[in-house]
Amino acid sequence: MRPHPEHHDSRAVAALLAPDILDLLEADPSSVAAETEDMHPADLADLAEQLPAGAVPQFLAAMPAARAASVLEYLDEDVRSTLLEAMSPEQAAQLIARMTPDDRADTLDEIDEEHAEDIVEALPTAMRAETERLLEYKSDSAGGLMTTQFVSVPDSDTVEVALNNVREMARAGGREAMNTVYAVDATGTLTGVLSLRELLAAPEGARVTDVAWPEVRHVHPTADREEVARVTQEYDLVAVPVVDDDNRMLGVVTVDDVIDAMQEEQTEDVQKLGGMEALDEPYMQMSIIGMLKKRAGWLSILMVSEMFTTSALQYFDGELQKLPVLTLFIPLVMSSGGNSGSQATSLVTRAMALKEVQLRDWWRVMMRELPTGITLGAALGAIGFVRVIVWQKLHLYDYGQHGVPYMLVALNTFCSLVGIVMFGSLAGSMLPFVLRRLGFDPASASAPFVATLVDVTGLIIYFSVALVILGKYMG
Amino acid sequence: MRPHPEHHDSRAVAALLAPDILDLLEADPSSVAAETEDMHPADLADLAEQLPAGAVPQFLAAMPAARAASVLEYLDEDVRSTLLEAMSPEQAAQLIARMTPDDRADTLDEIDEEHAEDIVEALPTAMRAETERLLEYKSDSAGGLMTTQFVSVPDSDTVEVALNNVREMARAGGREAMNTVYAVDATGTLTGVLSLRELLAAPEGARVTDVAWPEVRHVHPTADREEVARVTQEYDLVAVPVVDDDNRMLGVVTVDDVIDAMQEEQTEDVQKLGGMEALDEPYMQMSIIGMLKKRAGWLSILMVSEMFTTSALQYFDGELQKLPVLTLFIPLVMSSGGNSGSQATSLVTRAMALKEVQLRDWWRVMMRELPTGITLGAALGAIGFVRVIVWQKLHLYDYGQHGVPYMLVALNTFCSLVGIVMFGSLAGSMLPFVLRRLGFDPASASAPFVATLVDVTGLIIYFSVALVILGKYMG
Repeated sequence: MRPHPEHHDSRAVAALLAPDILDLLEADPSSVAAETEDMHPADLADLAEQLPAGAVPQFLAAMPAARAASVLEYLDEDVRSTLLEAMSPEQAAQLIARMTPDDRADTLDEIDEEHAEDIVEALPTAMRAETERLLEYKSDSAGGLMTTQFVSVPDSDTVEVALNNVREMARAGGREAMNTVYAVDATGTLTGVLSLRELLAAPEGARVTDVAWPEVRHVHPTADREEVARVTQEYDLVAVPVVDDDNRMLGVVTVDDVIDAMQEEQTEDVQKLGGMEALDEPYMQMSIIGMLKKRAGWLSILMVSEMFTTSALQYFDGELQKLPVLTLFIPLVMSSGGNSGSQATSLVTRAMALKEVQLRDWWRVMMRELPTGITLGAALGAIGFVRVIVWQKLHLYDYGQHGVPYMLVALNTFCSLVGIVMFGSLAGSMLPFVLRRLGFDPASASAPFVATLVDVTGLIIYFSVALVILGKYMG
Repeated sequence: MRPHPEHHDSRAVAALLAPDILDLLEADPSSVAAETEDMHPADLADLAEQLPAGAVPQFLAAMPAARAASVLEYLDEDVRSTLLEAMSPEQAAQLIARMTPDDRADTLDEIDEEHAEDIVEALPTAMRAETERLLEYKSDSAGGLMTTQFVSVPDSDTVEVALNNVREMARAGGREAMNTVYAVDATGTLTGVLSLRELLAAPEGARVTDVAWPEVRHVHPTADREEVARVTQEYDLVAVPVVDDDNRMLGVVTVDDVIDAMQEEQTEDVQKLGGMEALDEPYMQMSIIGMLKKRAGWLSILMVSEMFTTSALQYFDGELQKLPVLTLFIPLVMSSGGNSGSQATSLVTRAMALKEVQLRDWWRVMMRELPTGITLGAALGAIGFVRVIVWQKLHLYDYGQHGVPYMLVALNTFCSLVGIVMFGSLAGSMLPFVLRRLGFDPASASAPFVATLVDVTGLIIYFSVALVILGKYMG
């Protein structure tokens, strides 16, 4: 998480080039294509983002259509949507038609529905049907992530025929996912897989079916993006085939889309762990109203739950008035419980996401957190105990002013910390299990959620311990 | 984050197969290779993990060495280390020699140093030098992640010659990273890149230099794994070349290693956000002592910081004794500040990790969080205000029992919530900037850290507001 100087450079270079490109667009638009020929589409997209919004369509128009479509793929979502919505449906369709099928569907998914429908209608008929089919899948499912531009060859072909086929496809403009070749039988059923390199290495005269791997890791179009990521990672794939119930190939999810999906998923998890709904836009681009909506809900729920602390304090009103010294340690013991709970919940939530921990492991996790919580509680309790003694001895504060021996105040702090930190660790580690069991996302067991839970119960533990240790001074 | 039935299956299948394999190993070890021929090495590794530890070497020995090495690559770290440490250095070297260079170095990095040195000495000389060189790089740097098995061709070759070269390499057992072909000049300097598909598509008679892309995204061996991930993601690569200062190729990082690195980085971030040091092992495999070490440090620091709340309460002792009603809302207002801070800090930390927010954007972030914090504070304040009125009207509690008008108690709750939630949002959003500016990882701005910071200042805000609104009743 350190700054990356190279990254700043790529943006900075784009900012430097922008004025030149603007001049060129005015003076000699036909030269723009040649001038930018060697640049990566991702860098051209950075450049386009630095231009005034009005100049972007002109900039794209100055390039060959296929290249303009690649730049479009790398453009920031918001910039792209605004751009396409400002164009006529026919203009937009011309650009979008050159995108890969999965990016085309994603792009249409982002812009407002009416515009999207007009653009789809302006697409060539075959492409329109395919696009409409892709648009039906949820955007975070395998179907929503997949491209239909993959390479399949009849499994009965010889290696030479297959290789020539692939070569022709590559020359005809290429398919998006070409590193892996899929073998299919006459009915279109997926029967094997081999990498382009394995196809190249195959002995002459062999048939595809002899050299392809018969066990193909695949997913169904409804599979969650996390499942796609898991399969990609477990088997070190560069593409995951998506098949229907009859094992016929529908498309493939390429690794670059898997990486993007992993990153989005992680952003959602971090935001949920922070105690809010996941944002659906980057932080800086989200409107303040939109952000308030995502944040206020959980904050209000937490606040209403936290009101039980007020009720608990009202309940122990009498004890507090007789022994005001108890008030002094309320924030200290409560926050220690919340912190230990937050640790436990982050650990368990992440271990669940990585499949290191399954639902059935709850007991084993509890048996780990119990001794951990007691030990941590004893350590923190010791710090609290020493604090009371030291302040008393140094005459910084008189904990015995209400007739209670200060040693008992110290003991009370120690014992309640052991109890609360132990409870915090247990509650924090068990909450993700409970949430998953109930069908919720365990990542909703946010640090603030756990802290609130532990605050309320922590207060009750604190006063119960006090009643035992200091009870006779409250009477 | 939902359970994935397919995943359970792959483990379950391994568990089912394990007894059969054990029987086979006893009765007819020579048939094991044929029986498992069609299985993916990742699944064979799952199977090996289900066998008794003593049977694993025998299981691997029953397979061709190259295949055993692939299984080793997919084995769980701990199982692999134990296995190799139990073998003689010569046996281990034989297996390890068949691994890809990057996995070989990683594997040696995991096992204890003395064993590792013995194994390295038992490797063939050329491999030994290469392995020692790879071992010098930090494991989370580009050098530590890269493989030296990549494909480079002289840029002056014709496409046909290059393709034949690649084909021969593939037939000779293949290189790990074969989807991308790198063009180099006579001095080994990287001059271009093209995908295997582009090489296939290239017109006959063309030279490599005519068809390769001249601008190659690359990293240096010391680049952080996050930088590697960023380049991979930004340019949709399947491999990132690693070059030295003279632009000579040292190796490539393949996308599967990038994905693993991303996942490890995410695990570390979630754990840090939860308020602890990142674990270096999976949660369930870590010893309880080891885990205590990672968790106790931060908890103690937070607890000592939180002691300022005790000091603050001791300072406002007199006010509290005169107006005990103030005590009731301490946990409520404090936790609301902590929760809003936790939201802000998760948002900003993640936006920083994604480069959506740079250090110089701190002012823009503050200008977003200020109105957000005030609005959220007003919303929560309103809830708190209503709570006091309702409890009073329903005679559930008498907030006016010490001679203070209960409306003022309600107003005090409202105003302090506005102040504390606003402060929480600002502190939570600015802390990651401060940490980064000071050279720390912004992810250390954990929810518990922010909550502690806001607890202490929140108490001071609370009592300051009370002195203004309720001051005359404390006199």
